[in-house]
Amino acid sequence: MEYKLADRMSYLKASEIREILKVTERPEVISFAGGLPAPELFPIEAIQEASNRVFEEEGYKALQYTTTEGYRPLREWISNRMNKRWQTAFEPDNIVLTHGSQQALDLSGKVFLDQGDIVLCESPTYLAAISAFKAYGCEFIEVPTDNEGMITSQVESILETQGNRVKLIYVIPDFQNPTGRTWSLRRREQLVKLATKYEIVIIEDNPYGELRFEGEMLPSLQSFDDVGCVVSLGSFSKVFCPGYRIGWVMAHEKLIEKYVLVKQGADLQCNTMAQMVISKYLELYNIDEHIDKIRDVYRQRRDAAIEVMEKEFPKEVKFTRPEGGLFAWVELPTHINARVVLEKCLEKNVAFVPGGSFFPNGGNENTLRLNFSNMPVDRIKEGLKCLARVLNQLNIT
Amino acid sequence: MEYKLADRMSYLKASEIREILKVTERPEVISFAGGLPAPELFPIEAIQEASNRVFEEEGYKALQYTTTEGYRPLREWISNRMNKRWQTAFEPDNIVLTHGSQQALDLSGKVFLDQGDIVLCESPTYLAAISAFKAYGCEFIEVPTDNEGMITSQVESILETQGNRVKLIYVIPDFQNPTGRTWSLRRREQLVKLATKYEIVIIEDNPYGELRFEGEMLPSLQSFDDVGCVVSLGSFSKVFCPGYRIGWVMAHEKLIEKYVLVKQGADLQCNTMAQMVISKYLELYNIDEHIDKIRDVYRQRRDAAIEVMEKEFPKEVKFTRPEGGLFAWVELPTHINARVVLEKCLEKNVAFVPGGSFFPNGGNENTLRLNFSNMPVDRIKEGLKCLARVLNQLNIT
Repeated sequence: MEYKLADRMSYLKASEIREILKVTERPEVISFAGGLPAPELFPIEAIQEASNRVFEEEGYKALQYTTTEGYRPLREWISNRMNKRWQTAFEPDNIVLTHGSQQALDLSGKVFLDQGDIVLCESPTYLAAISAFKAYGCEFIEVPTDNEGMITSQVESILETQGNRVKLIYVIPDFQNPTGRTWSLRRREQLVKLATKYEIVIIEDNPYGELRFEGEMLPSLQSFDDVGCVVSLGSFSKVFCPGYRIGWVMAHEKLIEKYVLVKQGADLQCNTMAQMVISKYLELYNIDEHIDKIRDVYRQRRDAAIEVMEKEFPKEVKFTRPEGGLFAWVELPTHINARVVLEKCLEKNVAFVPGGSFFPNGGNENTLRLNFSNMPVDRIKEGLKCLARVLNQLNIT
Repeated sequence: MEYKLADRMSYLKASEIREILKVTERPEVISFAGGLPAPELFPIEAIQEASNRVFEEEGYKALQYTTTEGYRPLREWISNRMNKRWQTAFEPDNIVLTHGSQQALDLSGKVFLDQGDIVLCESPTYLAAISAFKAYGCEFIEVPTDNEGMITSQVESILETQGNRVKLIYVIPDFQNPTGRTWSLRRREQLVKLATKYEIVIIEDNPYGELRFEGEMLPSLQSFDDVGCVVSLGSFSKVFCPGYRIGWVMAHEKLIEKYVLVKQGADLQCNTMAQMVISKYLELYNIDEHIDKIRDVYRQRRDAAIEVMEKEFPKEVKFTRPEGGLFAWVELPTHINARVVLEKCLEKNVAFVPGGSFFPNGGNENTLRLNFSNMPVDRIKEGLKCLARVLNQLNIT
C-alpha cells in the first residue's frame, strides 16, 4: 500500500543524536554524544521513599486522571522557586506542567506557528527544538551569536525587514545547548526590549540554569519582561531525573490558557504519579543539597575535559569553556568535516555529535558537541585524548 | 501585548468534559460526566510492589532517558497479547509506546493530516479525537452510524466522490465512546475491504475492548488487514490505571517509523519508570484476574443503569445497552436540548455530558452521554432516578 502522509513528513528527519545513541550503547564506547545526566547521582533512595509515601497516602489519586494544568502543589513549588531564582513574579496559574520540556517546545510550535512563519534562533541552536518547530512548517533565521549570546543589532535588522513574518525568538541563555555559552546581562535586557518593541514572543528555554559551576547567576530574560512577551520553559530532567518526564511552561495567563488547550488535545495531562512523587520528594528533601552534589561532580568533569583539550588539541581547534551545564562546543578549521572525525573516533570506540545538525539551515560541518556530564573523569580524559590523537593525525593546518 | 497565535488557535476549543469535570469535583455531585475508571479497583498494592522491585533492581535505568520506541519487554508483552486477543501477527517492532492513547491520536494527526484533508468518523465520535485531529486543520465527514457501526454503503459513496481528499477513517469498533455500540463482524470486514480498495488508512481506537461484559469477543478490524491499512491504538488506562499514561500504536513497520519520528519531536519518549513498572506488574501478576474484577463491577453498574432507565425514563427517550466499556448514550426527542436538561440536573447535583460535542459538525443537541464506571450502584440508581424525574417533568412528547 502507498501511504499518503502529511507534507511535513517529507522534511522531518530522525534526530542524529538518538541515532548515534543506539550505536553507543555498547559499554566499551566512551560517548560524548548524548545529553544524559549522570545516573549515579540520581537520589534514588529518596525518590523511592517519596514514591512509597505517595502510594500509601494518596495512591488512588496518583493512579487516576488529573487536570491538564498539572498537580497544584508542584506548580506552587515551581513558581516560588522560579521567582526566587530568576527574579520574576508568577503564580501557580502561570504554569502548565509538560511531559518534559521537549513537549513544551512542541506545544509552543502548536500555539504559535503556521506554515511559512519564521523562528529566530541562535546559531547554532538545540537540534530537538528545530525538529519540534519544523513540524509546524516554519522557517528559521539563524542569528549570528557570540560569547555574549545573540548579537542584538542583528536581531533588530532582521525584525526591521522581516518583522511581520517572525513569530518566535527561541533562545537558551544559560549554558546553551550545544555551545555551553551564557548570555551577558546586557544582551538579555536588549533582546527583551526588542521583543517588546516588535511584539514578538521569546521562548526562553532553561533546562540547565541551576547547574552553574562558577560565577554569578544572572536574571532570566523573563525578569526584564513587563508586557508578557517571554515564555520560559523549565525541566526536572537535569536537576532531578529525566525518566519522569516533567517540565513546565511559565508565561502570562492568557498564553497559559492556550497551552492548556493544546495540551488537552496532545495528551490530556502529565503522568499523575510522576507529578506527585516529585512534589513529595521536594517536600521531604532539600533539593539544593542534591543540586550542589551534581554541580560539584559536573564541574570536575568539565575541568578534566578542558584540561585535556587545552593540552592536547591542535592549536587551530577552538572550543568553549562553559560556566555550567552539560556541553562544550568545538570548532575545527573549516576544511575539516566532523563526520569524518567521528568515523575515525568510532573505530576507536569514542563518540560525539557532529555539529551540523544544530544549524537549521545547514553548513558548519567543521563543528562538534561534547557532553561531559555522563562519564567519570578518567573516561573523559581517555576519550578526549583519543579525539586529540585523531585530530593531530589530520592535516589540520 | 497583542499575541499573534497560529491560525489553529481560532478554532480549537476547550474540552467540554474537562470543563464539566471541574464543576463536578464536589463530593456531593453524582457525576456521569467523566470517563474515569473506578479507582477502588486499581491494584494499588500490586503496583507499589512492582514499583519497589523496579527501584531496587533497575532504579537507575528507570529514572534515565530511554528510547523513543519504548521499553522493549513491554512492547513484547503488548504484541503477544494483541495477537492472541485480536487475531493479528505483529512483532514488538510494530509498536511504539505513547503517552496515553490521546497522544497516539495527536501523533496520528501529525503523521497523516494536512490542512483541508478529510477524516471520516462515526457519528457521533470521541470528542478528544476531534480536537486532536482538528489541530492539524482537517475537516470531518460524519458517516451515518447504526447499531452495527458505520454504514459501509455510505462510506463507499463518500469515498467514490471525495476519495482523494480523505486521509483517515477513524473508528472505535468496541463499546464506542460515546455510544457504547459495538460493530458487527460483517461491517468490520467490509470497512477494511473498502479501505484496502481506496488505499485509505483506518485508525482503529480500542481502549475498552477488553471490558466485555457478555457475548463473544470479535476480531479487530486489524485482523482483516492484508495490506497494512489499519493502525490500531491501545491503552492501559482502562484495564490498569490512567495515571501512568501509557498507550500504544500498533501498525506496519513503515508507519511505526513515522510515528517514532514525530514522537521524538513531540516529547522524546514516554515516562521510563511508568513503562518499567507496568512491565514488572505484568511479569509478577495475572492481569486477567484483575480485568475479570473490573468487568464484574462494571457489568453490575451497567445493569443498574439500564434497569433505572428502562423503568423510569419517558418512553420517548432512547438509549443504548452496551455490551461492555464505560458509556451509554441517550437520545431525547429532537426538540429537547440536553444542555437545558443538564442545567436542571446540576441544580440537583447530577451531571452528565451533553452529546453535541461528540458531533464534529455540530447539531444533535438532544443527545447525552452517561458514564457508568465511576460510581457504586446505589449512586448510579439515585442519579439516574433524578435524571428521570427531570425528564418526566419536561414537555417531552
